[in-house]
Amino acid sequence: MSKLRCHISISLDGFVAGPNQSLENPLGEGGERLHEWILALEAFRRSHSGLGEGGEVNESTPVVEESRANIGASVMGRNMFGPVRGAWGDEQWTGWWGDNPPYHHRVFVLTHHRRDPVEMEGGTTFYFVTDGIESALEQARKAAGGKDVMLWGGAQVVRQYLAAGLLDELELHVVPVLLGRGARLLDDLGDANVRLEQVRAVEAPGVTHLKYRVVAGSRTC
Amino acid sequence: MSKLRCHISISLDGFVAGPNQSLENPLGEGGERLHEWILALEAFRRSHSGLGEGGEVNESTPVVEESRANIGASVMGRNMFGPVRGAWGDEQWTGWWGDNPPYHHRVFVLTHHRRDPVEMEGGTTFYFVTDGIESALEQARKAAGGKDVMLWGGAQVVRQYLAAGLLDELELHVVPVLLGRGARLLDDLGDANVRLEQVRAVEAPGVTHLKYRVVAGSRTC
Repeated sequence: MSKLRCHISISLDGFVAGPNQSLENPLGEGGERLHEWILALEAFRRSHSGLGEGGEVNESTPVVEESRANIGASVMGRNMFGPVRGAWGDEQWTGWWGDNPPYHHRVFVLTHHRRDPVEMEGGTTFYFVTDGIESALEQARKAAGGKDVMLWGGAQVVRQYLAAGLLDELELHVVPVLLGRGARLLDDLGDANVRLEQVRAVEAPGVTHLKYRVVAGSRTC
Repeated sequence: MSKLRCHISISLDGFVAGPNQSLENPLGEGGERLHEWILALEAFRRSHSGLGEGGEVNESTPVVEESRANIGASVMGRNMFGPVRGAWGDEQWTGWWGDNPPYHHRVFVLTHHRRDPVEMEGGTTFYFVTDGIESALEQARKAAGGKDVMLWGGAQVVRQYLAAGLLDELELHVVPVLLGRGARLLDDLGDANVRLEQVRAVEAPGVTHLKYRVVAGSRTC
């Protein structure tokens, strides 16, 4: 069966975003430091229009290429899709990524508020799922057509999938930064019986890539 | 100048001990899982009497040997030295490590309660320091005679040295375990301006060793 994979940049003290995320500061205070390693990569710049040409090729390159390969659909939380809170209102918000988002497949956004799908350029369509994480994953698996599903975040959504035993692979891009505050990824998992197997570690400039297989997980309460 | 180094086993969710540490369960619930990788090593068993002979030689071996090399003295917190709380009473407690502790040098224990030094077999002497982390480090540096000082823990003491800008090297032995609760190492550092440089990462069976240089740090409040 297709896997649910989460590959996410994280500070050494466990945060995937800084404090006070907002429209002006979507990654929170200091959060942009978590992504410097990938923004510098040629492999990343190639797939994100508007970043310009060039970039580095280093030990992170095959990790990013592997991460992007064999993905047929995505799931993300509402707080990653945008800073909008509550009902969608006039539905002007179409994500952070401009007219041609870098997904090029169907993206299922978890929300409490109904909204019609939004078709973007380049093959990306955002679907809004209001009936929970299992439903979003099921829809994404169907859309992926046998390929894997990428879980982008944020922290709360990743935790929910992890605790529910639905995540198959977790790759942490560990950045040598201490944010001190923000959105902690692996928090509040006290009652989740999650077991991990270390798959591999890759040292690269300014980041270490730690990949784990989730071998069991379910909330025991 | 001699360096202050901290090398510590940590769960992927950031805990260096499980919850409810006690005399019966010094590492807290589940905390023993953080140390399985090192207990299996020949390099570790050799230096700890009572563990028996044999053991594994793998990618962790040079990491542990490097970690133990060039150490002339140690610092640890009272909560790592023992579960005793408050004044020392009849002073029967001499640590977790039997008559011949694996240090073989002077160990400075941070405490609020005065106590005379305790000389053990094999060259280990425990000194009890009541006037703060700077004093303990200064005494340990003198005792180390030009070698480095090892900071053993626990979490609170490591955080204090890190936030004060006194730690030079931090090596995290990251174990693929989620404890969910316990003593979180890198917590409550919101106002500390700590900057790290990644030195190296080593993948080994059941653990990844992440080594960082602390390039700046001081509490800004």
